[in-house]
Amino acid sequence: MWMQFKDRLNVMTMIPNHAEEALFGAIEAGGTKFVCAVGSRPSDIRIKEQPTENRKEFNTADGPEIVFANVVKWFREMEKKLGRNISAIGIASFGPVDLNESNALSYGCITSTPKLSWRGANLLEPLRSEFGHALPIGLDTDVNGAALGEFTWGAAKGIEDFVYVTIGTGLGAGAMSRGRLLHGLVHPEMGHMLLPRIPGDPFPGSCTKHGACWEGLCSGTAIQSRAGKPAQDLESDDSAWIFTTRYIGYALANLICVLSPRRIIIGGSVRKAGKLGQDRFFERIRDEVQAALAGYVVSDSLAGGIRDYIVPAALGDDAGVCGAFELARMKLSGLAG
Amino acid sequence: MWMQFKDRLNVMTMIPNHAEEALFGAIEAGGTKFVCAVGSRPSDIRIKEQPTENRKEFNTADGPEIVFANVVKWFREMEKKLGRNISAIGIASFGPVDLNESNALSYGCITSTPKLSWRGANLLEPLRSEFGHALPIGLDTDVNGAALGEFTWGAAKGIEDFVYVTIGTGLGAGAMSRGRLLHGLVHPEMGHMLLPRIPGDPFPGSCTKHGACWEGLCSGTAIQSRAGKPAQDLESDDSAWIFTTRYIGYALANLICVLSPRRIIIGGSVRKAGKLGQDRFFERIRDEVQAALAGYVVSDSLAGGIRDYIVPAALGDDAGVCGAFELARMKLSGLAG
Repeated sequence: MWMQFKDRLNVMTMIPNHAEEALFGAIEAGGTKFVCAVGSRPSDIRIKEQPTENRKEFNTADGPEIVFANVVKWFREMEKKLGRNISAIGIASFGPVDLNESNALSYGCITSTPKLSWRGANLLEPLRSEFGHALPIGLDTDVNGAALGEFTWGAAKGIEDFVYVTIGTGLGAGAMSRGRLLHGLVHPEMGHMLLPRIPGDPFPGSCTKHGACWEGLCSGTAIQSRAGKPAQDLESDDSAWIFTTRYIGYALANLICVLSPRRIIIGGSVRKAGKLGQDRFFERIRDEVQAALAGYVVSDSLAGGIRDYIVPAALGDDAGVCGAFELARMKLSGLAG
Repeated sequence: MWMQFKDRLNVMTMIPNHAEEALFGAIEAGGTKFVCAVGSRPSDIRIKEQPTENRKEFNTADGPEIVFANVVKWFREMEKKLGRNISAIGIASFGPVDLNESNALSYGCITSTPKLSWRGANLLEPLRSEFGHALPIGLDTDVNGAALGEFTWGAAKGIEDFVYVTIGTGLGAGAMSRGRLLHGLVHPEMGHMLLPRIPGDPFPGSCTKHGACWEGLCSGTAIQSRAGKPAQDLESDDSAWIFTTRYIGYALANLICVLSPRRIIIGGSVRKAGKLGQDRFFERIRDEVQAALAGYVVSDSLAGGIRDYIVPAALGDDAGVCGAFELARMKLSGLAG
């Protein structure tokens, strides 16, 4: 009885900036590393943990059993340290992952990843065996999670139709339509969109499945493969920047044609653009988008207002864990993603 | 008082198959012709009118003043003929059209069309001056309207995330995500998506803005321009079919990556595919989609189940007016599209 009342109190206190907000566990499950945190929002990330030179516990390559044993152990330690229990957990995961709750057996499982040890891995089960089946666990893709973080606290605040693109080792995007994250048959895999080739570009693309898809042309991996060194080390006049920003322009023009977003947010390490610099990187992308659309879609956001239309992520590297906090909060309060 | 009660009765009777359903006006405003109808649903299209050799009143080329004068006159005649008043009107219109109700001045106006006489034309005003400002008028794009028709009565019944593609003189697509039609900054213009070129294809594309975008490569106009004759007259082994179906495969693969629809529905005259035939046309498209995705997105719908995944429109040429009925009904009952 008292527990029920306490649970209701937790729900009642889920108001931003409230002093006694619930404590959430956040897991940003990336293809390279897991980033874990406890807290409730960007201004309340109590403790955040990720692999460092001295701390190797959260490396995705170790496989689900080892990683989740470490994650669970770490959450328990944090609860002890803070003297409070975690009320819900949010997971923003690499994919493809089954997000269909009506699939009793495969909901929460990684499906066709090239990471063999993760194929079929259940992301919810290890948490449930430790914390019990009653603990709410919110789950979405890494990019939808980051999109949710930007929507709740960042560059998409108050904008119900937008796209969040991340360009790092890989390339992906999440989207919201009318205030709800885009799902469907599986979940979007926008990085694998096919694009026109720029005449004279000799680079075959780096995607093992599609060669020159968006990810195969513009991810950090693609840039490294094209230029022989990582994006941050390229000279600002390296032709790789010309090709990369033009292909990004094609892809964003396509997203505008398909989704008609009210804003496009770009995160991930490549956006910092090393010696070219983030400002010039964004200027080029905006120019390329306008060139690709050729004036067909009429809106001030695509003309004079384009500097406020294609913008960098506001939460930076915290978008993922903050989105996971929000996934936890939504699950706790019974809201669907 | 009695009127209010009658209005409530109208709302209360909006149950499919109810004998005394409200009478709606439907306008499918196409780039070539207007198709008008009165009725309530596919099995209750009381009267449908469109330009014929003897009847020239609804030709879009006549411009908004003439066309709308004829439309209004026709609706009044139908009311008299049926002895009933129209309760609401739905418009599924060519675009680009301003669908943002918070834009007091431009809501319901055609924006950047190449049809000069229609630029800035207000689609709602002529109806309001005849029927009064109290008459509910639902408005969306032609493709969203057709998508809504297929969702309510056709091939998307019960499927809340899907894409409806129409390939006719032009090429466009509408989509629903989680049960709501996709809107945003403006509205989708999926036909203008940029696609990879097939090596060795000499056709430059027919889009005046983008050359070889999806519409520029695959619309009826593009096929005619490529092959020198209309799609329905092409031999089944004409290379135009090979190019066209492959480009459609690229485009649908991109839509799958971006939207993750649970079904893709194809309408429009080109799908009938003349001597190639609709069945073979769809078989080829399904094969091309699978080839383009290269197994990356894992779902039975994209493997063994693909025949139920990429399907022809069920309402055929009535999808647009039926969608307009539903737009009218939703507006009358206070539902947003």
